[in-house]
Amino acid sequence: MPAAIDFYTDFSSPYGYFASTMIDALAARHGRDCRWHPMLLSPAFQASGNTRLIDQPLKGAYSRHDWDRVARRHGIPYRFPEPFPVGTVAAARAFWWLDANMPTQAKPFGHAIFAAYFAQGRDISDKAVVLAVAEAMGLDAAVLAQGIETPEIKAKLRAETEGAIAAGVFGAPFTVVDGEQFWGFDRLGMVEEWLERGGW
Amino acid sequence: MPAAIDFYTDFSSPYGYFASTMIDALAARHGRDCRWHPMLLSPAFQASGNTRLIDQPLKGAYSRHDWDRVARRHGIPYRFPEPFPVGTVAAARAFWWLDANMPTQAKPFGHAIFAAYFAQGRDISDKAVVLAVAEAMGLDAAVLAQGIETPEIKAKLRAETEGAIAAGVFGAPFTVVDGEQFWGFDRLGMVEEWLERGGW
Repeated sequence: MPAAIDFYTDFSSPYGYFASTMIDALAARHGRDCRWHPMLLSPAFQASGNTRLIDQPLKGAYSRHDWDRVARRHGIPYRFPEPFPVGTVAAARAFWWLDANMPTQAKPFGHAIFAAYFAQGRDISDKAVVLAVAEAMGLDAAVLAQGIETPEIKAKLRAETEGAIAAGVFGAPFTVVDGEQFWGFDRLGMVEEWLERGGW
Repeated sequence: MPAAIDFYTDFSSPYGYFASTMIDALAARHGRDCRWHPMLLSPAFQASGNTRLIDQPLKGAYSRHDWDRVARRHGIPYRFPEPFPVGTVAAARAFWWLDANMPTQAKPFGHAIFAAYFAQGRDISDKAVVLAVAEAMGLDAAVLAQGIETPEIKAKLRAETEGAIAAGVFGAPFTVVDGEQFWGFDRLGMVEEWLERGGW
């Protein structure tokens, strides 16, 4: 089997959410696995001098309109969440704890967290919400609550975020195929072409 | 005939160049004219708090690689120009003078200016280069040289740039279809879908 593709996102990225609904099927169409890398975008923005879309004059208003339009186009359940954006430390740590301990549950949890925030309007910066999302999947919230406070998982999220920045990730979603980088939801079509053709 | 679509760009935008090779045919496929709006991006960046891609850590390197990749994919003659970016006041004024005085020559001149910079590596910030590009099209360089120094044409470029910013343009290329805004080369596919479906 050829190498997995890598998918970097922050759980508070609308374009990351939209891409998350498509990326695994896209990879599978080309016989690839897809490795998710939840990370914190804020240090990546600091490293690259970027700012959050929503805070930018003109671009902020454009983006809000665009998120609605993209969601409608693809039939993705979405409403602009308030507050926005939110910190995703607890959600990302929970993903990485599951990835290490119950790996089949990590991606389903990632989908559920995205949906909780962008479809249901729940504040995923709240650890209680993160645990409730896991519990609704049948996971043991008490075990997960302990897991996300361990030094290993805290270090894992830091290392993932630093590793992503070192690999050149400056925004979300960010997809890497055999070393080739693709930034943005808009580039999923190009990712698919790259997989089909093996580059050009 | 339905309303024309509007295409905003700065002549030093690589993504604007790539889009310029496709946008008229795209519009024509849907029975639309396409109005070009050459403008100066730098005031738009000031208004929106953006900075030039090439100056941004991580994103700058990504963009240089991406421009090569996009050009190869679509068979667009391209090499990264030096210096980059350059001021395009003279080129944009020449476009608007032609648009006012010899309108059938304006878009061919726009294509020739883009090609001079991005395919031939000529410095289009140099007024002599701008005039030489026009002359190679059979235009009267002396008349154009006078034309681009008139108060009317200087005011026209200022008004176009200010009007674009007032309309929400914060980057290039920027395409507007019946009031709906699409930012970026990446969105030409969505522009086409919007034209096909009349929105969604």
